[in-house]
This record gives sequence, structure tokens and C-alpha cells, in this order.
Amino acid sequence: MRLSVSFLATLTFAAGLCAQTPDADAALLRHLYDAALTDSPVYGHLGELVSKFPGRLSGSKNLAGAVQWAKTVLEKQGVDRLELQPVMVPHWERGAQESVHAFLADGDLPLTALALGGSVPTPAGGLTAPVVELHSLDALKTTDVKGKIVFFNRPMDPRAVNPGEAYGGAGDQRNKGPGEAAKYGAVGVLTRSLTHALDDVPHTGNTSYVAGVTRIPAAALSTVAANRLSAALKSDPTLKVGMEIHSRWFDPAPSHNVIGEIRGSEHPEIIILVGGHLDSWDVTPGAHDDGSGVVQSIEVLRLLQAVGYKPRHTIRCVLFVSEENSTNGGKEYARIAGEKKEKHLLALESDNGGYQPIGFQLGNTAGDAHPRAARWRALLEPYRLNVFEAGTGGADVEPLMALGSTVGEIIPESQRYFDYHHTTIDTMDKVNPRELQLGAAAMAALVYLFDQHGL
Amino acid sequence: MRLSVSFLATLTFAAGLCAQTPDADAALLRHLYDAALTDSPVYGHLGELVSKFPGRLSGSKNLAGAVQWAKTVLEKQGVDRLELQPVMVPHWERGAQESVHAFLADGDLPLTALALGGSVPTPAGGLTAPVVELHSLDALKTTDVKGKIVFFNRPMDPRAVNPGEAYGGAGDQRNKGPGEAAKYGAVGVLTRSLTHALDDVPHTGNTSYVAGVTRIPAAALSTVAANRLSAALKSDPTLKVGMEIHSRWFDPAPSHNVIGEIRGSEHPEIIILVGGHLDSWDVTPGAHDDGSGVVQSIEVLRLLQAVGYKPRHTIRCVLFVSEENSTNGGKEYARIAGEKKEKHLLALESDNGGYQPIGFQLGNTAGDAHPRAARWRALLEPYRLNVFEAGTGGADVEPLMALGSTVGEIIPESQRYFDYHHTTIDTMDKVNPRELQLGAAAMAALVYLFDQHGL
Repeated sequence: MRLSVSFLATLTFAAGLCAQTPDADAALLRHLYDAALTDSPVYGHLGELVSKFPGRLSGSKNLAGAVQWAKTVLEKQGVDRLELQPVMVPHWERGAQESVHAFLADGDLPLTALALGGSVPTPAGGLTAPVVELHSLDALKTTDVKGKIVFFNRPMDPRAVNPGEAYGGAGDQRNKGPGEAAKYGAVGVLTRSLTHALDDVPHTGNTSYVAGVTRIPAAALSTVAANRLSAALKSDPTLKVGMEIHSRWFDPAPSHNVIGEIRGSEHPEIIILVGGHLDSWDVTPGAHDDGSGVVQSIEVLRLLQAVGYKPRHTIRCVLFVSEENSTNGGKEYARIAGEKKEKHLLALESDNGGYQPIGFQLGNTAGDAHPRAARWRALLEPYRLNVFEAGTGGADVEPLMALGSTVGEIIPESQRYFDYHHTTIDTMDKVNPRELQLGAAAMAALVYLFDQHGL
Repeated sequence: MRLSVSFLATLTFAAGLCAQTPDADAALLRHLYDAALTDSPVYGHLGELVSKFPGRLSGSKNLAGAVQWAKTVLEKQGVDRLELQPVMVPHWERGAQESVHAFLADGDLPLTALALGGSVPTPAGGLTAPVVELHSLDALKTTDVKGKIVFFNRPMDPRAVNPGEAYGGAGDQRNKGPGEAAKYGAVGVLTRSLTHALDDVPHTGNTSYVAGVTRIPAAALSTVAANRLSAALKSDPTLKVGMEIHSRWFDPAPSHNVIGEIRGSEHPEIIILVGGHLDSWDVTPGAHDDGSGVVQSIEVLRLLQAVGYKPRHTIRCVLFVSEENSTNGGKEYARIAGEKKEKHLLALESDNGGYQPIGFQLGNTAGDAHPRAARWRALLEPYRLNVFEAGTGGADVEPLMALGSTVGEIIPESQRYFDYHHTTIDTMDKVNPRELQLGAAAMAALVYLFDQHGL
């Protein structure tokens, strides 16, 4: 309390500043951080979202609940305009819990698994077939997989310092493995979970099929289960695996991006966007992915208001739907923005977890976004923001680059992100309140700098 | 396995390099990181240390066990010289569990507490007295504390982005509060635990007394207990608190710094030191503080050997004792180094937790250590090492600066460090294997650069 009072006193002063000198910029950033780190509602918001609406998958009741929750939070916080933007989203459900077993000479070996998102079900009664372990999609060309279950078991490369890079490097097995394996006559696919963690927690995630090719059921094995199956196959290459998946596809469902904005005082027609995605996989509370991005984006609006800052451009918070299994929210937002010829100065996403931020990746069609933003390094270094990298924003804002926007994404420290990603254990206790707050503050700082100085 | 084999193949090549060009430097750093991130024993070592020897306080059996354990690990790993350097350390024991209660009109309010390290016991049967809440040592000058228990309740400043700064800013209450309060006639001290976390876990830590002034008992309250006591005092400023502490001081005890080194090929007489401290508070497994620093320092030697690097200078791993309650290990090491006129090129410590490293703090008597080391920024940035700050190393290596060494400390991301610091919950599960590995790799990288190029 004592801290907050003196803090409010300094704000009264700050609000009167025309923050265009480096000193005034530095003072405003300090105020944003002070507001973010004292009495912030952001961690409480995350707790509400993940406890009331876990498993916010497209088409689910909980996604609909999360949409209404986000609208209410923005409303109460106070915005100049609030919109629920209609988006059609896919509707896939897992159904009863899947099961995977290896049949060994001395009994069944249960293998902890989760159906991949979008997987077709196994035939009634399940599917039993021999298994072939592969480490790349290319290996399909030289291996007889006909009638077999293909087991893609290439781990994420531990040598990559950035786990996102390792995730991308192993992701083709999950993203395209089932579609590609089906082309060669495989009857099912198992993939090693995309994580560095060695545990019995399976990681789901989206998969895809190839048009015109029979769709085959696919599940991710925990890394422990993948190691067990691999060891069992070394003992008995002829062993069979049984898998049961009870998933179902429904008709596309109506949903909504949630949009709240503070109107700009000088150029209300020019938008600075901050956003994350409301949906999550069905099995997870989605605290890091992407509850954190949602509450941080809401918090950016609050922080600017809390310090009494009057933005020159319109600051828009967009909470996208269906990032996980269609990116329809991002696509529809960009389609409408294009149709309306809306101009976005910056579209900044948070979708890499609520960990301590270390910087930003940024991209624009000119290719000079990240070096230009790096001119603010001296202002941002006191907040441990030292990284300015090239990128194309997150999946939801990426389409806005083609419309002339600079796009970006906050870079959090991420060694732990893929330990929990798309699992039942992406829970509230994995998020540190201060790290979450620092992420929101970092986003607000970049938004402020773009608002004052452009790119 | 597949990765390791190809990795070993590239090492064979690397070992032959004379790594003095920027390209060769980059290649060597890459090899160090590859070795650190694949099949590293460092997390397993940490597990052994904290499970076999938790509560490694000076004078304890478990510190003696940890000394022998570290010696054995270094021996098995292979070093050119191994030494147990005698150090006398203080010997304080907590005794039976302490208890603190507020006596309210409607019953007792138990307050979760831990005696501060070095506290004298309460009189037999405990101590009961009225309480006065203060927020600074200065307030002692203007408050009547005679016959009372002083309750220092100033929180760590949440606005500091670096929690170490907030810890330092609030630390006088624990470090000096009991000694200062005693000067003014207080009979006991309670301090708010030094953490941003709001929970019921008390944090111990060292306190001190003033020579010639009666020593009074002192305990840290959990932040929840501190808030409860503060609220209770608002309702009833006359309430009394009872406290019982059963601690005991013993004669100083013999212990040992553990030293293992790889002899330099060109300048064996010049030393590059890496280190952490073996001791921990009595109540904690000490996984982050400083089990991590211990196993990382051991790992630095292994990494240099694993990539086949022949250091020009002697690389010495020093595992200090009694950092927590005397820094006698660091002082004795420096005293002997001074006596022997040993020259240290760099003394690098890890004592801020096993989190992902973001850079280094460095100091030397010329004051130019951190800008000079920053010339390696381009080599280190690929590993997310972007911070080069002024500092004086950790507590154990700091005395070496006066002897001409550059001293330093790895800077890990640290928002979570003080959530667990000096508590029962500084456990293995709080340490992420990859973060721990990255810390060791970062230390090895800086050691390599100093070895090749000096400062």
C-alpha cells in the first residue's frame, strides 16, 4: 500500500508529460513497469480463465464461455469500443479416452497417448497392426509401411538453445506424418511427443491429412512411452500395437474473436494491435498456451490507462479463436481488416508462454523491422529486454504483414514452455506472477514506443 | 544416441583446432554447448547432492558428506590435482522446531516462522512481549521498542525488475535488524521473509549482532504470517507475541573447500577459477542455492575435457564452504592464494540459481571488465547471453579482486529464485535440467574465451 500511494503520486505528474524526449520515454516506461508490478490483476485474470474455462477448444462450450468472460473483463476494465467478431471454427472432439497398447510376448504394455487434434477415429473395436519406427518423413519412401502403424520417434534436437527451433525441427512428424504415412499405405500413426521432457505426459497438437488419401488415426505417445515402444521393438520387431481413438468431427461452429480498443487521440484510424488466442487444446487448462497471452493483451490496455497515457493511435486488443486447429480467428480478422482497408502500425502477439520476456521478434515487408526497433535498446535494456530478432509475428498476426503492418511477438524465456505445451499439466502453478506481469509490461512498452515514434 | 554419435565425430575434428580465430571460437563454443545439452551428468549430480546431503550447514554431518561427495565426483571425472583445503567454519544449530504465536483476544494465532541463522535461543520456556511493527532500521531511533519484540515488515520492492536488487533493498532488516533493535532495548525480532511470493513458507538467512550489546532471539515469518500479524496489530496494537527458539552455538568446526583442477598447457601458474558453494541452510535441500553452482562448476571442467580442449591456463574448480554464515571458505581461499602469490585471470561464480543464464556480471580493479568482455557479444548472443554488467562477483570470489583477478558471476533469469531461497522448498523439482545445463555451458564459454584471449 505504501508503495502504491507514492507510485500514484508520480503518475499524476507523468500523465501531464508530452512523452517525446528520451527522458520522457524512459519515465513513461518506468511508470508502465511500476503499474505492471504492483497490484496488477493479470495473474488473477489468468486464474479465472483457466479455472473456469479449461479445455477451450474450438466448438466447445468452454471456448464460448471464455469469449464471454473476456468480453466482460474488457467491459469492466473500460474500453472505447468492444466487438465480438464472428468467426466459423472447426469442431472436433476427442470423445472417450484413447488407448494404445503394445502386445508383448509376456503381456500388454500400455503406452500413454493422446490422439492428435483432428485425428480420425480407429475402426470400432480399435486397430491392431505391426509397427515400424521411423525418424523422418523421408524414410517413408524407402520403408515398407503398408498395413502397418508408423511410429515417428525423432526427438526434438537437444542442442538447439531455443526450444522453439527444436520444436519446429521435429514438428513435421506430428503435423504431416499421418497424411504422408497414409499415402504409403500405413494404417495408423504414433508420434513421439514434442518435448524435451522425459516423462509420461503425452502432448497433443494439430495434425493434417492429404486430400484424396484415406485419413488414418494418429496419436502422440509420451516420451517415456515412446522410449518403451522403441526398446520393445528392438527386442521384437514383429510386435503389434493396438490403438483405439474415439474422436469425431462435427460441422463447423460459430465463434468470435473478442476485440476491445482505446481510441487514438491523433490517428484513431491507425491501429496498434496486441493479442493472444483464447482457444486451447481440449485436455489442457492452457495457462501458458495461451491464457498468458490473453490476459497480458488485456493488461496492456489497462497499463496504458493506469498511467494516464493518451495514445495517439488506436490501441486494439484482439483475442483470437481457433489458433490451435485452424488459425481461422487470425485469418478472418485479417480478411476483414483488408476489406475495410484498416491500417495497422504494429500487430504484437504473445503466444510463447507467460515466462520472463527477453525481447521481441519483429517483421515487416521491408525486412527492417527488428533493426529499427533495436534503436530503443537503451530504453528497454533496464528491463532485461535485449533481444531484437527477425520474425513473422505469431500465427494469428502473421497475415497482417501482407497488409502493411509490422508484426511481432514477445520472446519469453522458454526452456520450460514445451515441458507443458498441449498437455494436461499446462496449469496455473507453472506461471510465475512476476514473469507474467513483466511480459505484459514489455508489450505495453513496445506499444508505447510505436505509438510515439512509429517504426 | 544417434545425435551423440555424430556429435562425437565432429569433436574429433574440433580437438585438433587451434581455436584463435573468431570462426574457431564460434566452433568451440558450439561444441561446448552441444556437449552440455546432450547426455550431461549435471542434473544427475544435482539430484545426488541434494537427496544425499540436504541441509549442508557449516558444522553439519551433511556438509562433511557433501565435501567427500564432491571430491569423489571430481576424482571420477578426472582432474590433474585434487585438494581438500582446510577451513574453520562456524557451527550453529537450530535445535527443536521454533514456534511463534500471537495471543489474540479470541485465541492463539500461530505464525509460521524459522529462526534466523545465528540467532540466540529464547530463554527457557520462551519469550512473551508486546510487538511493534517497523519498516526500517531508522525507525528504531524514533520508536520506543524497549522490552518489545520488533517486527520488521518492509516487503521487497516489487517494482525492481531484478529481484536481487529488491532482496538487497530489504535485506538490512534480516542482516542487521536484530543487532540494531537490541541496541534500543528490544527483546526479540521478527522479520518478514525476503521474498516476493505470498505464501506460508518462511525464509531463513544469516543475521548478525553488535559487539557488546545483548544478543536477542530473531526469526523470519512467512509473508502470509507477516500479513496476519500486521493485520492483528491493526486490530489490537497491544497484543503480545510468544516465541520459542532452541538454537545453540558450538565451537567452530573443521571443514574443507574442495579444489579440483586441470593444469594449463602454457601458463599452469595462472588460474581461471569457477566455483559455487557446497554449504546450504540447515532446512533446505539447497537445489538452487547453491547445489546448482556446485554441479555447474564441476561440469565446466568436464565440458572442456569432453570437447578435447587443452586449456592454456590452469582451470580450477573451487567448491567453497560456509558461504551462508561466514564466507570463511572464500576468505580462506583468498588468504592462501595471496600468501602463495597465485595469479588468477578470472574467478567466476555461480550462486544465483540454476536458471537460464542471460549474461555475466564482471568486475576488476581497473573497472573495465564488463565492457571488455562485451567484445565477445557476437559470439555469445546465439546462446542468449546478452547482458554484460558491472559487479564484484559472488561473495566467495569477491576477495580475489583485490589480488588482481577479474571476478564475475553468471546472471541467470531470477524471478523465481527468491520464491525458494533459504526454504524447505528449494528442491530438485524447481530446477529445469536444460536451464542448469545452459548455465554450465555459459560458464564454460566464458572460461574458454578468457583462456584464449585474456580480458
